[in-house]
Amino acid sequence: MSRPQQVSIREVGPRDGFQNEPDLIPTDDKVRLIEALAAAGYTRMEVASFVRPDVIPQLADGVEVLRRIQVPDTIRLSVLIPNERGLGNALAEREHFHDIGLVVSASETHNRLNINRSVEESMQASARLIPRALAEGLHCEAIIATAFGCPYEGEVKADTVLGLAQRFVEMGATEIGFGDTTGMANPWQVEDFFARAFERLPGVELTAHFHNTRGQGLANALAALNQGCASFESSFGELGGCPVPPGSTGNIATEDLLSMFSEMGVETGVDLPAVIDAARLAQHLLGRKLGSHTLVAGPVDWHRG
Amino acid sequence: MSRPQQVSIREVGPRDGFQNEPDLIPTDDKVRLIEALAAAGYTRMEVASFVRPDVIPQLADGVEVLRRIQVPDTIRLSVLIPNERGLGNALAEREHFHDIGLVVSASETHNRLNINRSVEESMQASARLIPRALAEGLHCEAIIATAFGCPYEGEVKADTVLGLAQRFVEMGATEIGFGDTTGMANPWQVEDFFARAFERLPGVELTAHFHNTRGQGLANALAALNQGCASFESSFGELGGCPVPPGSTGNIATEDLLSMFSEMGVETGVDLPAVIDAARLAQHLLGRKLGSHTLVAGPVDWHRG
Repeated sequence: MSRPQQVSIREVGPRDGFQNEPDLIPTDDKVRLIEALAAAGYTRMEVASFVRPDVIPQLADGVEVLRRIQVPDTIRLSVLIPNERGLGNALAEREHFHDIGLVVSASETHNRLNINRSVEESMQASARLIPRALAEGLHCEAIIATAFGCPYEGEVKADTVLGLAQRFVEMGATEIGFGDTTGMANPWQVEDFFARAFERLPGVELTAHFHNTRGQGLANALAALNQGCASFESSFGELGGCPVPPGSTGNIATEDLLSMFSEMGVETGVDLPAVIDAARLAQHLLGRKLGSHTLVAGPVDWHRG
Repeated sequence: MSRPQQVSIREVGPRDGFQNEPDLIPTDDKVRLIEALAAAGYTRMEVASFVRPDVIPQLADGVEVLRRIQVPDTIRLSVLIPNERGLGNALAEREHFHDIGLVVSASETHNRLNINRSVEESMQASARLIPRALAEGLHCEAIIATAFGCPYEGEVKADTVLGLAQRFVEMGATEIGFGDTTGMANPWQVEDFFARAFERLPGVELTAHFHNTRGQGLANALAALNQGCASFESSFGELGGCPVPPGSTGNIATEDLLSMFSEMGVETGVDLPAVIDAARLAQHLLGRKLGSHTLVAGPVDWHRG
């Protein structure tokens, strides 16, 4: 395998991050933050979710956010679709986004707790959803949550995850995201996993989605990169987590990921100082210190000196 | 190279961590914290420094700490020695520790700002110090700071660092620590560095000392491990930093390093829950939230389930 010199980063803070904030973020602030992020040069950003507002009130203003944000044409915006009703609602806003994300947990227990369905029910719903989305010209990312371990069931077998991924590809998904939803992946496992995933799913875009629950997020990203992974999801300010179980802390911080890649000479096309500015703004608007390290230390700047 | 299945971790929080606390930690608290850490099964811990108390008042009670702590015989305690006077003072307490650490920065500017000497002056002092320490039966770790980059000078060449390391080995140092003092290392650099270091210094114990300044600390530890490094230094609670420049935040958190190694099946001999307990106590005694992630999330516990 060759090591990528260029990667793509999807900013998921406006969805994965905002969803996990204890207090509702005013729509104005969301718009401001998304526009600040867009100025950093991302080509992909997840900005809303079409979940039921009573289930995730934090994202109830998704339609308004989508309609109001002013971002460059170079960004592909994606929205999370939980089910067919969600897709219907999303399609009414079709002109405001480009991609959809679907989620299923590899773990039966986590899937039930997270979206109240069996894994098989989720897969069957996806089989109906994906062709409908494709017919609308939407790019579909299928995200497999708890792909590296489940806090309820323990080990999740790579074969199980790759079996689901294979089925998603057959349904028409063009990108498969592997989510370490509760931060249980370790780097040697990730290395082995991505080696197998690239072998089994040639030509499919494979995306790594790590959480920094136990501080290993960037080590896992490194392990995936070393195996050829060139697509990552991260959240500015280390925002994020997972609704279940409680205490599942943030996604890997975009600033820290960008700092690492930049120091390694891996191109991202995203401007680190601009992301730090956005994270600083989030810190100000949310009124609390965020977890990313580069936000405190600033970028290594001697390369530019 | 083969990947280690077993590693040694030196806890440096009681020196590298405590030294960077803005407020003085009462001696009683230090003793309590060191004893709590010792209960976790470490075989190495850095517990004091013989620097001038007016320079680092945070560690002025080093002798008292050394005399008072009650720890198992299985722990080798080390103390930091800045110069010959420091060694003299330390030798008066010879029965209370086993190892010494000496520091020189690979960067001329950082060395001057940190210890007010040129690199060559530090090396010459080390050449006098090490034989004296060896004659006392002390094991000597020579720590090369800013080994992966300097905030003042920028790039630090691996050749420069390995040249200093070579000289330390010739002086009798049995362990060389490579310090990423201000968190500027990146994993591919670390990989390349350790590959060269093991080639150039066969049979010498090489120790990785990373800071998590920009969140990449564990990724760097992984890169070193993958090249065969089996000796690490870390600080419970992600305490630590560096006196210069300001804003150089903490060492890698022992809890996070232990969590990663434990998940990878790499043996450390250190009990993660006991370290979390010690970090929780530190959080309580210092009256502020510490930065380690595993301290919040807790260990992945399904292996034991």
